[in-house]
Parts: sequence; structure tokens; C-alpha cells
Amino acid sequence: MTSASPTKTGTGNFFEDFRLGQRLVHATPRTVSTGDAALYCALYGNRFAMASSAEFARQIGLPEAPLDDCLVFHLVFGKTVPDVSLNAIANLGYADGRFGVPVYPGDTLTAVSEVIGIKENSNRETGVVWVRTTGTNQRGQEILSYCRWVLVRKRDRASRPAETLVPTLPKAVAAADITIPAGLDLTNYDCAAAGSRWRWDDYQPGERIDHVDGQTIEEAEHMLATRLYQNTARVHFNQHAEKDGRFGRRIVYGGHVISIARALAFNGLANAFRIAAINAGQHVAPSFAGDTLYAWSTVLAKAPLPGRTDLGALRVRTVAAKDTPCASFPDRDSDGAKPLPAVVLDLDYWVLMVR
Amino acid sequence: MTSASPTKTGTGNFFEDFRLGQRLVHATPRTVSTGDAALYCALYGNRFAMASSAEFARQIGLPEAPLDDCLVFHLVFGKTVPDVSLNAIANLGYADGRFGVPVYPGDTLTAVSEVIGIKENSNRETGVVWVRTTGTNQRGQEILSYCRWVLVRKRDRASRPAETLVPTLPKAVAAADITIPAGLDLTNYDCAAAGSRWRWDDYQPGERIDHVDGQTIEEAEHMLATRLYQNTARVHFNQHAEKDGRFGRRIVYGGHVISIARALAFNGLANAFRIAAINAGQHVAPSFAGDTLYAWSTVLAKAPLPGRTDLGALRVRTVAAKDTPCASFPDRDSDGAKPLPAVVLDLDYWVLMVR
Amino acid sequence: MTSASPTKTGTGNFFEDFRLGQRLVHATPRTVSTGDAALYCALYGNRFAMASSAEFARQIGLPEAPLDDCLVFHLVFGKTVPDVSLNAIANLGYADGRFGVPVYPGDTLTAVSEVIGIKENSNRETGVVWVRTTGTNQRGQEILSYCRWVLVRKRDRASRPAETLVPTLPKAVAAADITIPAGLDLTNYDCAAAGSRWRWDDYQPGERIDHVDGQTIEEAEHMLATRLYQNTARVHFNQHAEKDGRFGRRIVYGGHVISIARALAFNGLANAFRIAAINAGQHVAPSFAGDTLYAWSTVLAKAPLPGRTDLGALRVRTVAAKDTPCASFPDRDSDGAKPLPAVVLDLDYWVLMVR
Repeated sequence: MTSASPTKTGTGNFFEDFRLGQRLVHATPRTVSTGDAALYCALYGNRFAMASSAEFARQIGLPEAPLDDCLVFHLVFGKTVPDVSLNAIANLGYADGRFGVPVYPGDTLTAVSEVIGIKENSNRETGVVWVRTTGTNQRGQEILSYCRWVLVRKRDRASRPAETLVPTLPKAVAAADITIPAGLDLTNYDCAAAGSRWRWDDYQPGERIDHVDGQTIEEAEHMLATRLYQNTARVHFNQHAEKDGRFGRRIVYGGHVISIARALAFNGLANAFRIAAINAGQHVAPSFAGDTLYAWSTVLAKAPLPGRTDLGALRVRTVAAKDTPCASFPDRDSDGAKPLPAVVLDLDYWVLMVR
Repeated sequence: MTSASPTKTGTGNFFEDFRLGQRLVHATPRTVSTGDAALYCALYGNRFAMASSAEFARQIGLPEAPLDDCLVFHLVFGKTVPDVSLNAIANLGYADGRFGVPVYPGDTLTAVSEVIGIKENSNRETGVVWVRTTGTNQRGQEILSYCRWVLVRKRDRASRPAETLVPTLPKAVAAADITIPAGLDLTNYDCAAAGSRWRWDDYQPGERIDHVDGQTIEEAEHMLATRLYQNTARVHFNQHAEKDGRFGRRIVYGGHVISIARALAFNGLANAFRIAAINAGQHVAPSFAGDTLYAWSTVLAKAPLPGRTDLGALRVRTVAAKDTPCASFPDRDSDGAKPLPAVVLDLDYWVLMVR
Repeated sequence: MTSASPTKTGTGNFFEDFRLGQRLVHATPRTVSTGDAALYCALYGNRFAMASSAEFARQIGLPEAPLDDCLVFHLVFGKTVPDVSLNAIANLGYADGRFGVPVYPGDTLTAVSEVIGIKENSNRETGVVWVRTTGTNQRGQEILSYCRWVLVRKRDRASRPAETLVPTLPKAVAAADITIPAGLDLTNYDCAAAGSRWRWDDYQPGERIDHVDGQTIEEAEHMLATRLYQNTARVHFNQHAEKDGRFGRRIVYGGHVISIARALAFNGLANAFRIAAINAGQHVAPSFAGDTLYAWSTVLAKAPLPGRTDLGALRVRTVAAKDTPCASFPDRDSDGAKPLPAVVLDLDYWVLMVR
């Protein structure tokens, strides 16, 4: 008779467990379904027509309604948590995120990450790890690739990393690198069905849009969402432990905040039917149940797409703020040095929009 | 560089924006799925056998299990909110609601409304707008048509409506106008599977039924439901704004209350497998998270259906009350003048029932 | 005009209503879908690969991803509630539970119970009823069979049961009686995809595993789950009534606790991809919203399976405890006489695991 066998329980990787070039094959392949799409709708109330209607999707050249892009992001991200961020203190940022082929009900998603950067912090108690994660469907087609970096605990203060590398990451995905789904043709795009008459040509760099509405977060909702993504980060689920943690309560998964902001942004960006790339993203401050999120966006840039007169790309920055309506576009303090305390999300991304 | 562009954000129609005969083509077509059916079951625990079992549905002549009628109603209703009731103060009533062809997983729903009545209120700050909304599937078949009227804010007190018309609406849908789904044949209807031995012939006008059970509403649940219907009415979602609103908290979507009442009514009306028409309906008082809803029903009328010996129509009035068990059928005060304070819903509808 | 007709409302069976050999055909057949699977994932965050991925399921010889075994259990169990336990005071135990053919999206489940034991309690106010419940798919194949016994109220203290029989139930299902799904072949089982390198051969009787993570229960979640299973037991849903009940609040359905414990057990038992049998189970104490559940398991026995080198059976006992991390394996008091107050679930079951 043996006693406790803690080795069978995964405890996640610590800073020392990561090596440059290391390939992490993440567990739990996931077949997605219209059930996931329905739940995603119930969680965020999304109204972007392409993901809501198979008829609309077919009118623009797709075989059926693809899953929402953020849902795909969360499903891929969720797989990485047990290997990348179970011992992370913070999710520091995203870069160079590119959406590939659309994901349809019935597809099976898997994810692999490669360690592309490692740097110990000067306090020698933590370090930063950069990974590039690639999500793939059952045909081996890339559905998403992105970099993220996390602040990870060390197992042993005295240990030293074998190598140090801070990767050079692009500030933004080049418009030329945007993937346009095969077959997409917006000739028959129906603006009335999509909910807005504002097209790519109507948006101008520098323009700011208050998305007006607010959405209050409930514990049950963010946990349902995070479990749907099979994301196992403990801080989201365990009130008994978190009551003695940094904030005294469960922290909302940052991706839940992204999805709320994206859903709110429908009001003003209804024709931004597809997220094509994530240039940069920061979870500026944590969110908690009871917070009401508002959002505003600004157009950072516009890019025509080679050979396309039916659609263009818009580079958008969306800021979400808690318990603060966004008519005055809350952003940074008067010096521009620090985000205002209400700001929880700062996301820079490319969307495709009908011309 | 331009600044804020509020015009890209939908702010909904005010009283002045409505014109008699105006046709509102609502946004966001929606393909429904078994995922929606599963969520609907999780939200209300419905047990009506036809919507629960494809085998049962086939035994009575349908190709598969249709979506619950109330789910169809909410999906169609949800589409109208951004155009009809974003600036509404109250949803005043329903009339002449007729369910058409059943809705199956894979169908895509769209909705159009026509303005059929306009009347300014004497306070000149609000007005009443009547619309007839029609929901259609991807084959252009009518799935639902109903009238509702709403109390809407004016943008400008000084403005006057071009026309005034108070439409004449029927007190009830005539039994002769009830649509029976094509192919429906209850010869092999299985009462044991359906959960009750009480058939159409066993119910009598004037009979009252206490549905016994109670269901407590949670914030997460009514918001999940309302977002599933892509209903964007702000009062349901934003605690930060509603804390300073009329009630100090979020209001539960009235349709959520209808669905709870319908689910409770299974206990006593289990063979009322299909809602055929909505004659009239009133959200008598608002509901809030934490309320426990109970319900009772009375049979208003019975109608045989032409040429059918397998099923009949029953006109039912269901009353839902909060925090009040319904063994004594709470209804109106002793004068009969006003509903008792506990009453939240008063719904008059036709159901189809096996004979 | 007749008045209230309470007879049309089901009030459930009391102790006197049960007869030895009685066959209860339960209502509400249920066609399951990928929507149910998605909701189940959102409720528990399950990561067992076979139920998560159609590709994984096909690699091990199944046609597609079956529904989670616990979901099947709850769906069958839910059907029995209106007939067996609506007037039950407590769910006393389970025995001899055997999972049959896997359940796939599109299957329709029905359930029948037979009364196999009846015994009045000495207080003459309650009695114990034993039933064997069998769940069947639309092809008549057995998907699950199990015994449970419940403490049921008597309608009339003076009544006496016609017969008394306490059935003899096996302490455990014999390993030889375990059903292995047709076609199952683990030759190509992918441990990396499944999330663990620990195989059947690595586990030893007596070994204990702390599942580490904790999951806090919310009211909205346990009610969504319980309604998804069409389980109508009143104590889970009605705060207005329960505020004056035994505990002053709604009680969490015991099956919800089983599913949380099973999901937590992934961390340490990831390759236990299928529950084959339930030997015994006790809901030791009630759970409530706000409780955080932890779990630990011990291996009770191992059994090779006749003619199989690809998989074996592991008999596992999983204990769930509330607000108590399980690193020290909370179990019984120092005398071994009583479960510690934190313990809420004690479940003894067989799992199939890759060798």
C-alpha cells in the first residue's frame, strides 16, 4: 500500500520548466458544435450576422455559420493553461495573433505552443515566458496563431535559467498578412440584416465610438464561460482559496472581458463581421463579478486589401472600462502615463468590414 | 481626424421616428440549433414531450422535435427590440399572436414589423406605438405573427405626430384561425411518455389549476436567457445604470417570466404540447432576481378543431405570481379592479391538446 | 363551472403508493444533442478526451464522441424524480449501477423503474423504497441500470405496507459484469491528447490522489444543471419555500456534486475516460450555493479485463469535501465511525483506463 502520490496530479510548469524552443503539445482536443455557438450567444448576446446565421454566411460565400472568432481564441487559449499559465501571476500581453481558416461546427481543435522567450526577473522570484500558440483543426489547417507572455513563479529562487531571450514581436500584424477566408465574397452582403449601414469607407482613422451599453458580470456567467473553454486557471473558480488571495475574490478570465467588449462593440461596428488579427492586448486591471463593463473604440488605421473591392481591413483599438460609461472615452491619466483606474482592457486588432 | 461619431451607434427609435405603415426590417438573422433547445431546457426545465424528444415528435407526424414555441416567440421578439423598444418605458400588451409552421434546428429566423398604431399621450412626453411583427423562416414561411404595443419616450416634447391611429385588435384569436402543423396526427400520442393522462375532454371551462411548484430567478439566468434571444433592452443587463433607475436593479425580461410560467404549467397541463396562439398578455408588474414565481391557470374556453378527432384547442389563462403560492389562485383585489400586488403576468392563449 | 381540480396536478407518490414489483414508466423522453454536451462542459469544465473530441473517440474505435457518463446518469435519474422521489426526504444510496451502450447525440433516452424493496420505518411516518431504474435508447438498448433507495414520506401515519422486503444488493459490481463499448480499441489511444502519461499499470490499490483544485457552486449553475436533466425535485429551485425549510435555502442536486467531483478528478485520473459502473454512493451531507468543493480519490482495486491488453478496470473511491482542501484526504473521524463534517460525497465506482 502506497500513500499519497502527488506526482499523478498536474501542478503545472514553473519558470524553471520552460526551455527555449520547447514544444508543448496541449491536451484535450475539442470538437465544437452548434451547442458551443448557442452558449456563446447566451453568454455575450453577440449579433454579428455571419456567426448568427447560416443563411447570411452562405450569402457571403461560406459553407455555413462559423464560430465566433473570440470563441475560437478562448478554446485555443484554454488548452494552453495547464501547461503555460497554471503558475502564472499575470497574463502580460498578446502579440502577432492571426486568425486562419474559419472554424465550423463539427471541427476538432487542438493546440501546440512553442517557447519563444525566457527572462528571469531581477527579483529572482519570477520570470517571464513567451510562447507562440498555434491552434489547428482536424485537417491540420491553422485556425489561429498568436504570441502571449506570462509572469510565472519560480519553483526555487536559487535556480537560474539556462538561456535568456526576449523575442522581438511585431507591434501589429501587417495588413498584407491578414487571412481572408476562402470563398468569401461580400457582393451580396446585406447591411440591413447585419444591423448597420456604416461600411468600411465610412470609418476614418482617429474616429472614436462610444458603444453606449453596459453589461454586468455575474460569477455564474464567467465561470460557465471559462469552463466552456476548458480553461483551468484556478483563480476563476475557487472562492474558498481566493478569499485569502490577492483580491479576496475570484478573478474574471480576461478573455471573458474581451468577449463582452466585442459584443458591446457591435453597437457602432456591426459590419466588423470578422476579427482578422490581434495586434496587441493587455488586461490592464482585473475584473470581478458585479462589475459593469462599458467599451469604446477608436479606428487606428484602414487598409484596403489586395484585389478586393468588397471588403477592407480596419485596425481598431477597443478599451473596456468598469462602472464607467464611455461617452468621454476613458483612457489614460492627464500625463498619458498610466491607464485610468476604470480601464480593464486595451485591445488592438484588425477587423474585416464590408465596403 | 474626426472626434466622436455618435451617429454610428444605434440609439433606437423615439416616438417621433415611427410612422403609420412604416416597415421595420429587423437585423440579425438567427439560425437555431439543438444548442438553443438544450439551453432553453436548462433555463426552464421544460418537459413537454414534443419539444423534448425527436422520437415522440415523429410518432405524432412531425419530422423531428421542433423548438419550444416560447423560444420562437422570444427569438422573434428579441430582433424587434433595437428598432421598436430600445426607448420604451413599458411593454404594454400583446394581441392576435398566431404561431405558424413549427421551427426546427437548422432553420433561420428573421423578423419584420409594421407600425399599425400611433398615439401621443396627453402628457406629451410619451406615446404609444403599436406594431405587428412577423417572424419568417428561410423558406419564407410564417412562423409567428403578433401585435404588441409599447410606451415610448419622445425625443422632443414639442413635436407632434403626423397621424394618430389606435388600431382595433381582436380580444382573442378565433379558434378557426389556429394553424395546425402539417402532418400532425395524434393517433399514436403516448400519454405516459407525455406525463399525464388528462386529455382535452377532461378539461372544462372555468376549471382552475394550481401548478404548485415555484422557481426562483437568478440574475445570471435571466441575462443568459435574454442574450440567447439577442434581446438588447438595456434594463436587463446593466446594474451600474439600473442602480439609479426606477427600481434600483435590473428588470427581468417579461418573456423570461412567460417561459417560467409555461414550464410550471406542465404540472397540470402536460398534454398542452403546443401553444397555438397568444390572445392577450400583460406584464402586470416587473420581476427581479430573487423573486420566486408560482403560477396557476384557468380554462377560458374549449374549441374542437374542424375535421379533427385527435386534438382540440383549449383557451387558457395563466397567471404568475411572485413569492405567493397559487393554491388560492391569486388574481384581483376584492373589487376586481386591480391585480393583486403579487401578480406579475396575465397571459391568455390557445393550446393544442390531445383528445 | 368547476373549481380547483388538484387531481390534474401531479403530487408524486407517497410511501403507500409503492408496491413490490410495481413498474413505473417515467415520462418525458429526451433526445440528447451536442447542445447538451456543450452545456455539460460549461457546467463542469470536463476534459476527458473521449467525450470532448470526436476525433479522439474515433481513434479508439467509437463512431463519434459519446455523452459524458455522468450526464447520462443525471438524465435517466431526472426522469425518475416525479414518480419516485418527489416526496422523498433523502436519497439514501446507490448500488449495482452499470453503464451499457454509450449515448450519442441524436439518441433518445427513456427510463423505467421497478420497485424492488419496501420497508416502513419504526417511526411509522416514513419508509424506505428501493427501485431499480433502467435507461434505454431509441433502439431499446440498455444505456444504464442502477438501484437507488430513498426515504419517502407516508401520506397517512395509520397506513401499513402490504409487504416488506429489503433487497440484497451487491457491495460492488463484479469486474466481469462491466460492459465494454462495442468496437472500443485503445491501440491508438493518445496519452498526450488525453492529458496524462499515467496508465492503468501505474495505479496501485491503496494509492490516494489529491485532486487539488476547488470549484465554488453558484445557485444559477446548479439550477441550470438540474433543469437540463429535467429533474423536478422542488428543494433545488424554490428559495421562497426553502427559506422556511430544513436548511433555510435551496439544496444542490447531489448529482451536480458527483459531476463536480468527477471533473475535479481529471487532475490525477485523466485516463479514466469512462465510468463503467457505480458500486455504491452516498450523499453524506447536503451542499449549498457558495460551497467550494474539493475532492480526493483512492484506488480500491484493479481488475484486468478478459482478453484485453489495451485497457483495464480501476475501482476508485472519490470523496468530495466542502471548503476543505484535500491534501490530507479528509474522510472519517478518529474512530472511523462518522464522516467528517466537511465530507459531502462518497462514491465508489469502476472506471476504464488505458494500459
